[in-house]
Amino acid sequence: MNSGRPERQLPVTERTRHRRLREQGSLDRDRLDAILEAGFVCHLGVEVEGTVMVVPTVYGTDGTTLYLHGSVAGRSMIASPAATVCVTVTHVDGLVLARSVFEHGVNYRSAMIFGTPRLVTDPDEKLAGLRCLTEQAAPGQWDYARRPHRKELAATALLALPLDEASVKIREGAPDDGAGPDAELGLWAGVLPLHTTWGEPDPDPLLPEGVEAPAHVTRRVGGPAN
Amino acid sequence: MNSGRPERQLPVTERTRHRRLREQGSLDRDRLDAILEAGFVCHLGVEVEGTVMVVPTVYGTDGTTLYLHGSVAGRSMIASPAATVCVTVTHVDGLVLARSVFEHGVNYRSAMIFGTPRLVTDPDEKLAGLRCLTEQAAPGQWDYARRPHRKELAATALLALPLDEASVKIREGAPDDGAGPDAELGLWAGVLPLHTTWGEPDPDPLLPEGVEAPAHVTRRVGGPAN
Repeated sequence: MNSGRPERQLPVTERTRHRRLREQGSLDRDRLDAILEAGFVCHLGVEVEGTVMVVPTVYGTDGTTLYLHGSVAGRSMIASPAATVCVTVTHVDGLVLARSVFEHGVNYRSAMIFGTPRLVTDPDEKLAGLRCLTEQAAPGQWDYARRPHRKELAATALLALPLDEASVKIREGAPDDGAGPDAELGLWAGVLPLHTTWGEPDPDPLLPEGVEAPAHVTRRVGGPAN
Repeated sequence: MNSGRPERQLPVTERTRHRRLREQGSLDRDRLDAILEAGFVCHLGVEVEGTVMVVPTVYGTDGTTLYLHGSVAGRSMIASPAATVCVTVTHVDGLVLARSVFEHGVNYRSAMIFGTPRLVTDPDEKLAGLRCLTEQAAPGQWDYARRPHRKELAATALLALPLDEASVKIREGAPDDGAGPDAELGLWAGVLPLHTTWGEPDPDPLLPEGVEAPAHVTRRVGGPAN
């Protein structure tokens, strides 16, 4: 960590204790925040009618709470406030190409958050949570687009999950077999990076002529998306 | 579908029946295969000691089976053969920027596979599964890198999950509010695409001078990764 302030630590629980590959586990709270801030799609794991479901969904975070939303009719939304869930956010950064197949791997940043989500019912908190969620995926759109009216708010379920119990895993850098016996094989080894970037905005074909994409959209083009 | 042959259908089960947003659900088996072939990282959902865990992990597929691997000591690996799991593969293709916040969304391709994985113990099948998994992430590396020896094979748990029960969801194209009353607002709307591409290979700093990246690695540079 390069910052001058002391590293903020995540609490260790039975669920978040790193058991294997400890060098990849991190208890640094700033790393958790950075992983969550870098994305907008998570995988929500919840048991629904006796079956584990893993559902990709959009999220937002304000640093203390993770917000998730969905239709009030969605099965994972209905089940979640009654159950412990696991929300995982993963950024894949590259392929680790080692000398041996066994040492192949992936460079990634991943966070798992455990907890029991709370269904947000207070209208002000619901609006604030939806704003957080919208702005995380699409900064500038909350002020640009038409905000939700009452009927739309009622049709949207918003879940709030505290960031109290989380586990971070990160792998970065070169393969691990560069100093071992396999280095003698003379094979190339390294990382093939994966880049996730925003492309050129693709206008809705129904858009009237002359309506230009706003600056808060176009300024993202070519930039990293995680 | 553009192919001349009839569309192959996925069976509908209680778990895979699309209940909401049916226009986004697909029962086309070819679409499942295409989603699985386009990626190499999935999210494995499994209950471990009473808690749902969602673990990012590498996979491979041969069209009938999904292979997952991990350390024989990994908690999700130990738990999986005894439990029904959900494996989800998601590709995020872009942000859907609508006239109203409510209609905002994500263009994506996602597959959920349900089943009880089988722990592969037969050495030949284990090698074939690991080859499938390696070649999916890193085509060409199985023949280029040193293959696993017996001790490494013993330390690797390989799970086989049949592709019998799966659910596909896809959203593509423009926002949905271009023909509604919000079109009168005169706001820009469209899709901000997300591109995932391979970058330039980053050689291991321990590599001796003069060892060049092989063609099966360099030919991926700049190409799409999902």
